[in-house]
Amino acid sequence: MTLLKRSSHPVQRPAFARWLGTTNDVTRTFLAAGSIPDLINMAGGLPAPETYPAGELAEIARTVIQDHPNEVLGYGPIEGLPALRDALAERFSSPALKLTRANILVTTAGMQGLDLIGKVLLEQGGLVAGQFPTYLGALDAWRPRAPTFRNMVFEDPGFDPVAALDGAQFAYTVPNFSNPTGKLVAVKERQALVDAAHETGTWLVEDDPYGTLHYDGPALPRIIELSARAAPSQTYGGPVVYMGTLSKEIAPGLRIGWVVAAPEMIATLTIAKQGSDMCTSGVTQRIALRGLETGLIEQIQPKILDTYRRRRDALCAAMAEHLADWFDWEVPVGGMFVWAVAHDPSLNTDLLLPNAMAAGVCITPSSVFDASGQNRRAIRINFTLNEPARLVEGVRRLATALVQMQAQKRRRKERI
Amino acid sequence: MTLLKRSSHPVQRPAFARWLGTTNDVTRTFLAAGSIPDLINMAGGLPAPETYPAGELAEIARTVIQDHPNEVLGYGPIEGLPALRDALAERFSSPALKLTRANILVTTAGMQGLDLIGKVLLEQGGLVAGQFPTYLGALDAWRPRAPTFRNMVFEDPGFDPVAALDGAQFAYTVPNFSNPTGKLVAVKERQALVDAAHETGTWLVEDDPYGTLHYDGPALPRIIELSARAAPSQTYGGPVVYMGTLSKEIAPGLRIGWVVAAPEMIATLTIAKQGSDMCTSGVTQRIALRGLETGLIEQIQPKILDTYRRRRDALCAAMAEHLADWFDWEVPVGGMFVWAVAHDPSLNTDLLLPNAMAAGVCITPSSVFDASGQNRRAIRINFTLNEPARLVEGVRRLATALVQMQAQKRRRKERI
Repeated sequence: MTLLKRSSHPVQRPAFARWLGTTNDVTRTFLAAGSIPDLINMAGGLPAPETYPAGELAEIARTVIQDHPNEVLGYGPIEGLPALRDALAERFSSPALKLTRANILVTTAGMQGLDLIGKVLLEQGGLVAGQFPTYLGALDAWRPRAPTFRNMVFEDPGFDPVAALDGAQFAYTVPNFSNPTGKLVAVKERQALVDAAHETGTWLVEDDPYGTLHYDGPALPRIIELSARAAPSQTYGGPVVYMGTLSKEIAPGLRIGWVVAAPEMIATLTIAKQGSDMCTSGVTQRIALRGLETGLIEQIQPKILDTYRRRRDALCAAMAEHLADWFDWEVPVGGMFVWAVAHDPSLNTDLLLPNAMAAGVCITPSSVFDASGQNRRAIRINFTLNEPARLVEGVRRLATALVQMQAQKRRRKERI
Repeated sequence: MTLLKRSSHPVQRPAFARWLGTTNDVTRTFLAAGSIPDLINMAGGLPAPETYPAGELAEIARTVIQDHPNEVLGYGPIEGLPALRDALAERFSSPALKLTRANILVTTAGMQGLDLIGKVLLEQGGLVAGQFPTYLGALDAWRPRAPTFRNMVFEDPGFDPVAALDGAQFAYTVPNFSNPTGKLVAVKERQALVDAAHETGTWLVEDDPYGTLHYDGPALPRIIELSARAAPSQTYGGPVVYMGTLSKEIAPGLRIGWVVAAPEMIATLTIAKQGSDMCTSGVTQRIALRGLETGLIEQIQPKILDTYRRRRDALCAAMAEHLADWFDWEVPVGGMFVWAVAHDPSLNTDLLLPNAMAAGVCITPSSVFDASGQNRRAIRINFTLNEPARLVEGVRRLATALVQMQAQKRRRKERI
């Protein structure tokens, strides 16, 4: 080895990758949230901790390590434990949708499914046809591939699904209680997306973390189910890539999710997963499997639905009392969020955020759900984390922040 | 929405990303391994399941869910649980190496650290200065960013660390019992790498999954420790990015690893982790923390070291008896592998693999540890998974495969 002469100047480090310059400023504002005492957090998408079946999971965790030590403590198959893949194939199968283990990839929760889809489908700058507004976490997951977005607004009367999907590397939708809008994609729109995916060949990602959080009315058929009905086959091989998670059905801390898709897609995602985290923990996979097998999910679901339905009702009642002068919204029939759009197109919800935080409440401004950051007229309010009384107090604080912003604006005008 | 006319031709799906065309053919050969009865697997880097402290972990798992239900079952901080980050900061601190929570990122095991480093440092085609031969998993993790490699052979008398690191986005080494070669990087070479990293500013990734698997002689100072000694500071802020894992100290199934680095690097890796898997499971993080706090790691380490030392000795004795005509190797002082280089430069170990599998044994050919796939003269043999008698039988089978290959070659020559 050669000897070095030591430089007296501090050296420049290599730059971080360029995509890291594109994260939203709002994230930095949120970082202050933890240090504000008594802040009411209505920004995140967090479940109510009191719904976690902690006692049952503690016993299950002990049992699965005792019963399957080598399997759960060793490296597992990249695709997931065969028994869990089989259970998931059975769970999502129907007379039309025929699934085997080859259709299933176990992921380290829902976010990893999005990361892997970006890895296997996107070249740098690749085109994504995304339901607009778009889940923030999906934008985060794909940012390292620097995609371009073609926004899909399904409610737009001129929306043409074939034109939207044609030439895109994949299309993306959250059909059940969309994050951020809380809306259901109607059956007619689901069918049109399926038809367009079959027509154009474009992969259609159906991201469904909230599908079981249905408070009123019947569940709608999954998009992958409609795809299977449109093109029957012995093993599903169509263009829909369905993603789910146990984060809302049991607990996020398990970090267990799944992808249901054509075997060729599963095999390709598996290559990407190998280089991402090798395999998902066998411990949490076996806990999840026991949760599926023993009916734990069905057992706790009524409590989850009841808790969240009451919280949604409390939030929407408080909004009707305090926010109707500023915002319009629809009462969502499921999910975790209310999406409120300002009457005044000039209301900038990026500016509302720091005012709201100063008043002791945190909500999410719409700009983070737009890859271009332009949409500043709406807010997303979560109703699952806080008890009704806290939700009501949070809405009061938000109204206070709005009144203060309005007063500031009036004073600025008077000065001019 | 517009109506569709249905095409009668099967449609073309969008292509998968180009990097997926670059995976090694050897992987496909390995896929057959599971279906061969009585195959002796000496290919992987798998620990011995009998070393897993299953009884203790079963009790710990139950306890941590009972004691911290909201923390371990909810979404945790992206960077990891504060208590685990503090414990890791304490574990790796020394008088010279001053660490706080801000220096620590908890990862979903070691592979995720490699994935995240690729995401935050590599543009498409970016340059990596990699210790050669290079850990297969690192090549896998970075493949989606399609890097170019500058190979570093530390033993080469002409090796110039400044020239090697200059202009690279980062440098990569496994200094303790390198995967695949099982070699230690000497202290002089470690120091030269540190000096070059300080001189050029290049990030230097010290990947250390095997550091505790030391069977003979003293442990060498970590590269990050040498960096801290060279440039003392109140909180480590130097160019070394140290990565570790509990996969070899407790069990891979926990999927717990860590990165120790300058706070700016940890903050940047955290952005990438958010879009990769949001956070690591609180359940497995708390299990890991209990393992650190209660001394479980120290308690099981003597058994692990004793088991692996005896297996290494059994393997090397059998190799001396059966393989000395074909290969040269050094007896490794730690780790999981013996690296054997063929006397005959024309021996193609990619071709040896299917012959070995036909004889009932699986080893890893050297081509997979070379980004260009050119190095075909060596094999990596694992000694940690199998009991001594199986290792001896595996070596016998490998010798059988070599004799058969030689006979085939002779017959081909006679025909010509």
